[in-house]
Amino acid sequence: MNEVIKTLLNHRSVRSYSDKTVKKEDIDLIIRAAQQAPSSIDKQQVTIISVEDKEKKKKLSQLVGDQKYVDEAPVFLVFCADFYRAKLAGKIMGEEIVITDSQEANLVGAVDVGLAMGNAIAAAESLGLNIVPIGGVRKEPEEVIELLGLPEYVFPKIGRAHV
Amino acid sequence: MNEVIKTLLNHRSVRSYSDKTVKKEDIDLIIRAAQQAPSSIDKQQVTIISVEDKEKKKKLSQLVGDQKYVDEAPVFLVFCADFYRAKLAGKIMGEEIVITDSQEANLVGAVDVGLAMGNAIAAAESLGLNIVPIGGVRKEPEEVIELLGLPEYVFPKIGRAHV
Repeated sequence: MNEVIKTLLNHRSVRSYSDKTVKKEDIDLIIRAAQQAPSSIDKQQVTIISVEDKEKKKKLSQLVGDQKYVDEAPVFLVFCADFYRAKLAGKIMGEEIVITDSQEANLVGAVDVGLAMGNAIAAAESLGLNIVPIGGVRKEPEEVIELLGLPEYVFPKIGRAHV
Repeated sequence: MNEVIKTLLNHRSVRSYSDKTVKKEDIDLIIRAAQQAPSSIDKQQVTIISVEDKEKKKKLSQLVGDQKYVDEAPVFLVFCADFYRAKLAGKIMGEEIVITDSQEANLVGAVDVGLAMGNAIAAAESLGLNIVPIGGVRKEPEEVIELLGLPEYVFPKIGRAHV
């Protein structure tokens, strides 16, 4: 069995973290791996926000349903479906982006967030880091959007606490 | 850079296939890797259908928007959000599963399908196989559901042609 499949089969969610800092180059690699996931019609509609600020993490841990491991994790990555970028690009090119008028945007955004996050999990675990996915970022979307300063057409789908 | 991250960063979508058969043990490994992806509240709401029958693949290649590489690929995996299993389990335990009444089911199902598929792609590529994700399985959902004989509460989210 090769290293990739071993890593995937060994996945476990971990909710207890040490207080070690995650190396910036590891976060960069994890995000690069996530960005390399396929996206629907190559629209790259996923944005990943790395939250390391203690105050913001604390507030997020409450907003996702009082899950203290979000606060305790050294890094919390928020995976957002992001059609703002496509809207901007459309504006520049004089093309109207209409997917955001339909349910299809919700589905495409969610699948693409999952694909990106799948890669991020595998990358993190291959580096000896552990994670737990937090669907609770969809619990109070308006507050999370305000806290992270997200523009329109950007929606937090899933978060991920780790080391 | 480790083998896992190398594999993830090397991902490319491939739409041209040889006519070699994919080994059954490789398909099994790919599906096991996909099943090991995290799922929301561990509900395991993803079902993967491996379509190898020539007639069905041909019909699917038309239903997804005349994409001939679906027909040409030796295997076409259909990733479905599946709440039928939870509904059945709920019935046995005397609990009502209500998530299917809300948009949250659509989002959870789509994210979980993405997570499972992310693993499946990494596993396939680590075995020297190539893939392309096909969002077109959502194009004619009723026909796809009928062709694959899916029960209620099971929805095809994304397909994947490969070798």
